[in-house]
Amino acid sequence: MGRAAKLERNAAGIETAIGILKQRFGDRLQTGASVREQHGHTTTWIENQSPDAVVFAASTEEVAEIVATCAAHRVPVIPFGTGTSLEGHVNAPAGGVCIDLGQMNRILAVNEGDLDCIVQPGVTREQLNTHLRDKGLFFPIDPGANASLGGMAATRASGTNAVRYGTMKDNVLSLEAVMPDGRIIRTGHRAKKSSAGYDLTRLLIGAEGTLGVITELTLRLHGIPEAITSARCSFPSVDAACQAVMATIQYGVPVARIELLDQLSVRAANAYSGLDLPETPLLLLEFHGSDAGAAEQAETFGDIAGEFGGTGFAATATVEERNKLWQARHDMYWASLQLRPGARGISTDVCVPISRLAECVTAAQDKAAELGLLAPVVGHVGDGNFHTLLLIDMDSPDEVAKAEDFVGWLNDLAISMEGTCTGEHGIGQGKKPYLARELGPAVDYMRAIKAALDPHDIMNPGKIV
Amino acid sequence: MGRAAKLERNAAGIETAIGILKQRFGDRLQTGASVREQHGHTTTWIENQSPDAVVFAASTEEVAEIVATCAAHRVPVIPFGTGTSLEGHVNAPAGGVCIDLGQMNRILAVNEGDLDCIVQPGVTREQLNTHLRDKGLFFPIDPGANASLGGMAATRASGTNAVRYGTMKDNVLSLEAVMPDGRIIRTGHRAKKSSAGYDLTRLLIGAEGTLGVITELTLRLHGIPEAITSARCSFPSVDAACQAVMATIQYGVPVARIELLDQLSVRAANAYSGLDLPETPLLLLEFHGSDAGAAEQAETFGDIAGEFGGTGFAATATVEERNKLWQARHDMYWASLQLRPGARGISTDVCVPISRLAECVTAAQDKAAELGLLAPVVGHVGDGNFHTLLLIDMDSPDEVAKAEDFVGWLNDLAISMEGTCTGEHGIGQGKKPYLARELGPAVDYMRAIKAALDPHDIMNPGKIV
Repeated sequence: MGRAAKLERNAAGIETAIGILKQRFGDRLQTGASVREQHGHTTTWIENQSPDAVVFAASTEEVAEIVATCAAHRVPVIPFGTGTSLEGHVNAPAGGVCIDLGQMNRILAVNEGDLDCIVQPGVTREQLNTHLRDKGLFFPIDPGANASLGGMAATRASGTNAVRYGTMKDNVLSLEAVMPDGRIIRTGHRAKKSSAGYDLTRLLIGAEGTLGVITELTLRLHGIPEAITSARCSFPSVDAACQAVMATIQYGVPVARIELLDQLSVRAANAYSGLDLPETPLLLLEFHGSDAGAAEQAETFGDIAGEFGGTGFAATATVEERNKLWQARHDMYWASLQLRPGARGISTDVCVPISRLAECVTAAQDKAAELGLLAPVVGHVGDGNFHTLLLIDMDSPDEVAKAEDFVGWLNDLAISMEGTCTGEHGIGQGKKPYLARELGPAVDYMRAIKAALDPHDIMNPGKIV
Repeated sequence: MGRAAKLERNAAGIETAIGILKQRFGDRLQTGASVREQHGHTTTWIENQSPDAVVFAASTEEVAEIVATCAAHRVPVIPFGTGTSLEGHVNAPAGGVCIDLGQMNRILAVNEGDLDCIVQPGVTREQLNTHLRDKGLFFPIDPGANASLGGMAATRASGTNAVRYGTMKDNVLSLEAVMPDGRIIRTGHRAKKSSAGYDLTRLLIGAEGTLGVITELTLRLHGIPEAITSARCSFPSVDAACQAVMATIQYGVPVARIELLDQLSVRAANAYSGLDLPETPLLLLEFHGSDAGAAEQAETFGDIAGEFGGTGFAATATVEERNKLWQARHDMYWASLQLRPGARGISTDVCVPISRLAECVTAAQDKAAELGLLAPVVGHVGDGNFHTLLLIDMDSPDEVAKAEDFVGWLNDLAISMEGTCTGEHGIGQGKKPYLARELGPAVDYMRAIKAALDPHDIMNPGKIV
């Protein structure tokens, strides 16, 4: 890991396609080194593999034109949203043309009566929620980064609200996409449910741009709840915190967010975000409902937490306090890096059945300690999903080797617990070996689908399969 | 319609495969006319096309063996659950071997801590819920019929609870399936969410057995709510009832069920189920939550209903009363047929954005009246999904022609309203022409996937694509 595999380059085809596209798109096609580098992988430890050109597309028709040109010359196409994915999804291991969708950022329709909206793929989640606020609506999926909605669909993102509202697969009604041959399709319309043929919507969600470019999304919206109550609660151990989570989910409390920070993460948050939380494992929670309903949920959780040694249970009194706490949660990646300035962060992403969560998190902590790795843990624990962030000196081959061992060991552990190596980050380049270990022969059928829809392997090659 | 298209038969291959399978399965392979006919289409008006043989499979390995044998001899394979699908899904237009999965009806595991379970495909929803009751858990999807869970997944079923709990696509965590080449795959494990590669789970859900045979399902479960409150409310018009539904959904009331019966349906229910409901459009509702929460929901709905002229709003006092009301709802198909003894019922299944629901239902009623067709309406209106049941004398070519016109007209109307021709019944044989009208070029990619996974078109041929 770290070093991403290279694929064979079709240098002649790339040159021809870029020539044609340059003539068509002028200054909206760029080949400067810095633009290209910004559109290769920039986060975590996988090395940057830049595309040969970046085209800033303005419409579905333009995307179709770019893909058709690249298809004609067998040139890789890499769709790009905000570049916040973590597994090398936007790298160009065989070069090619990156389509930057950031300028396709219009909110095309908000249907308040139907609780849905239609957006272009470059719209970010914060942009959408700012637009919706006055209408009393919101889009719940929150992966932390202010990612583009097209990118979030492509990686099947989820994040802190998923325990109540589901993931991108549950909140996209339908898609428009440009397929690998340059044709435009719609996978559905605005019905809340449909049994009309194969579920191409869900096939494209999580396909990481390897089956087509998402050019429009029809999204489910939700009413902003009458009451939003946040709370925090400290626990004597990660095990106790996880037990409280399991009991809360089993009890049926419709908690909107339930996030774990281990002791090290709390220390990082205190330092980075100016908090003074007790330095023991912490759960951060949010309850959505009517005034009475949200209060009832918080009270039920408080009772459960008490049974597992939870202390300092406190519902946040003000919106400011709530925002400060959740901002600290969102900043955890940066806060954690400050625990060891100069280190790179390598995030794991396993997700296990909630009954195995305490065991899995504790084992991960013990293993990191055994290897001498600094590795704070945060988790969307209501889903059984957590991230161990390994803080690694990339100049130390010994540390890098240990990190590789850790990642492989943890992925295998999660798979042995009937879980997955990736709850929300996706496979990309980084997790390809684990996909095969997790799903075995099923991967052959993924390959068959890829070959059928993209016979020349031009769509984001080198990812997933 | 009515007459289903025939496909070319591979008579020699079928004879060979049946010979091999007979030797292997003995009396568990049957070729008698009545068994074969029971395993062809038996519901609604599409003619019965029987398979050449029925094999009663007892294990995943047996299913794999049957499929491999059929694959080797290019013989159609038709998976069969309880035969309650409505669009000719279990017909055998090219003959072949039906695999009856009814004996694969074991509940393999219930993981209470994780709110999930693992079942064989022949387990029915009532069987599962009876098994779960003592554990305080339930599986929410309820399409009315006591269907098999494998069949429900195959048709992406939903029904009365979907407005709150989603459809089969939202409540299946992963599948085991035998693919068209006879290999066994798992599409995932027990993690609540995953971003591990293409979503084969969702691809098989709704594929109607055309991409493989589902042999095991891992399902999400829910805690039986502390309180379940039912209610009913009469309205002066279908329009008023639909307006009340829209307002309820927009207001964010997490209603578990919200079902419409039009005037004709209420009349049928009164006669068939011994009720004395006012013969005007009716909404039947169910609220799930804590004691206080369910009561609050019912109260909020009562207020909304009042604004739209709702009268006789009454929460049911006893479990018996509640069961009687919902049993009447489940019996609507049979009750409606009694409005015209001897007639066949032809059910439409459109689903539209909820803002268009009142207009769509009213237009359907007007059109049926204009054509002189008796056509009661029921609907899962919280999702925008409703069924017009055309009661047709199949011996009258004029009536049959009118029914065909009506079905086509209504499907086109729903599609023009950004809806779908099928909310939950599926495409099967009956709706193939409408799939193309609804999704256009997307169907080409469905065909490409089908050809890639099932190159000899042996899996349930003649359905969907």
